[in-house]
Amino acid sequence: MGKVLERELSRLQDRLLHMGSLTEQAIGKAIRSLTSKDAALAEEVIEEDKTIDVLEIEIDEHCVRLLALHKPEAVDLRFVTMAFKINNDLERMGDLAVNIAERTRSLLKAPMLKPLIDVPRMAELTRGMVTDSLDSFVRRDADLARNVCRRDDEVDNLNDQLFRELLTYMMQDAKFISRAIDLILIGRHLERIADLATNVAEDVYYLVRGETIKHGVAGD
Amino acid sequence: MGKVLERELSRLQDRLLHMGSLTEQAIGKAIRSLTSKDAALAEEVIEEDKTIDVLEIEIDEHCVRLLALHKPEAVDLRFVTMAFKINNDLERMGDLAVNIAERTRSLLKAPMLKPLIDVPRMAELTRGMVTDSLDSFVRRDADLARNVCRRDDEVDNLNDQLFRELLTYMMQDAKFISRAIDLILIGRHLERIADLATNVAEDVYYLVRGETIKHGVAGD
Repeated sequence: MGKVLERELSRLQDRLLHMGSLTEQAIGKAIRSLTSKDAALAEEVIEEDKTIDVLEIEIDEHCVRLLALHKPEAVDLRFVTMAFKINNDLERMGDLAVNIAERTRSLLKAPMLKPLIDVPRMAELTRGMVTDSLDSFVRRDADLARNVCRRDDEVDNLNDQLFRELLTYMMQDAKFISRAIDLILIGRHLERIADLATNVAEDVYYLVRGETIKHGVAGD
Repeated sequence: MGKVLERELSRLQDRLLHMGSLTEQAIGKAIRSLTSKDAALAEEVIEEDKTIDVLEIEIDEHCVRLLALHKPEAVDLRFVTMAFKINNDLERMGDLAVNIAERTRSLLKAPMLKPLIDVPRMAELTRGMVTDSLDSFVRRDADLARNVCRRDDEVDNLNDQLFRELLTYMMQDAKFISRAIDLILIGRHLERIADLATNVAEDVYYLVRGETIKHGVAGD
């Protein structure tokens, strides 16, 4: 591999990791704004998403330029195409962090519905999946990537549990409905973030092993 | 452009359009299962998503192979990278059609909550956006692509309206809650499909004009 290509690939990876860390921060902040009832933090998440959006476009351009100028082959080519996809997934996670922040903004206008036991736990699991999916990418660690995919069910189960619990609240008293729906939607957003982390991990698995574990098609 | 590359690019476009038409069908069926109370249709959507999932992987592989073997340049390169993204967006639309079908399955177990005036209208608008985003891709029509992006707000507004209306229902009687939530989530899924159609249209715009209209960065 030429020195220039090597440098370009490493620069692309750094940018993607920077994007990943901004996304992780956004998710963490959105959840912290909810658990610590800090509306200013929610506003920060919404404001800072613009940086993630701009970075997404820059990384896309970087990928296309890299393909055009260096015509990478084999594993390098695969890396660039995966970077392209991961970039997209990270940007969507950023959007979901904004959605959580928006719901939090609405929730914080009234007293909290219940101790938020399940939501922080779900958030913790989800953030762990995001972090590990990015780690598996940096270290080209197929086992860690597969491990991330397996954890997705746990988040789904927690979300179902949260949903049922909130349904019960709403049945008991109509004045809880609006806030319960905000929490249901936050649960959904977290579940979608976990799905996207799973997508990233699937892409890493493919990058390292050259076979897919997507949609249960192979890999087990 | 070499004859072989030309043929490959046209084959890739055909596959993507096939994927697009399967996705459109899935969305249409999911909504029809709801409006015509046809549970069998919902099951079909869930079953047929496997075809879309397999096709997504095949198209991804096709893109990577095309980049590896033909090293396309300039507008051809841009086309392949956009195909890669559009493929991803279409697969997610397919998943959302499944989500709608699952909610419909749950809804059809009990009498319908209200005449479904807003949902079919939202669905109609959303499907139109999906169709036109694919059309703008086939015809490389930047104006149509921009038009799709502009219609996204309308779907968002309808969804907000649906949400508020269903909230009122729930407040009136707790026995409506579970079904109202199913409808709220169907509204969300439709809104997300419209977002993805907007993504496709943004990518088409970029493909044709070489500049972005994403995140309100430029183009107006």
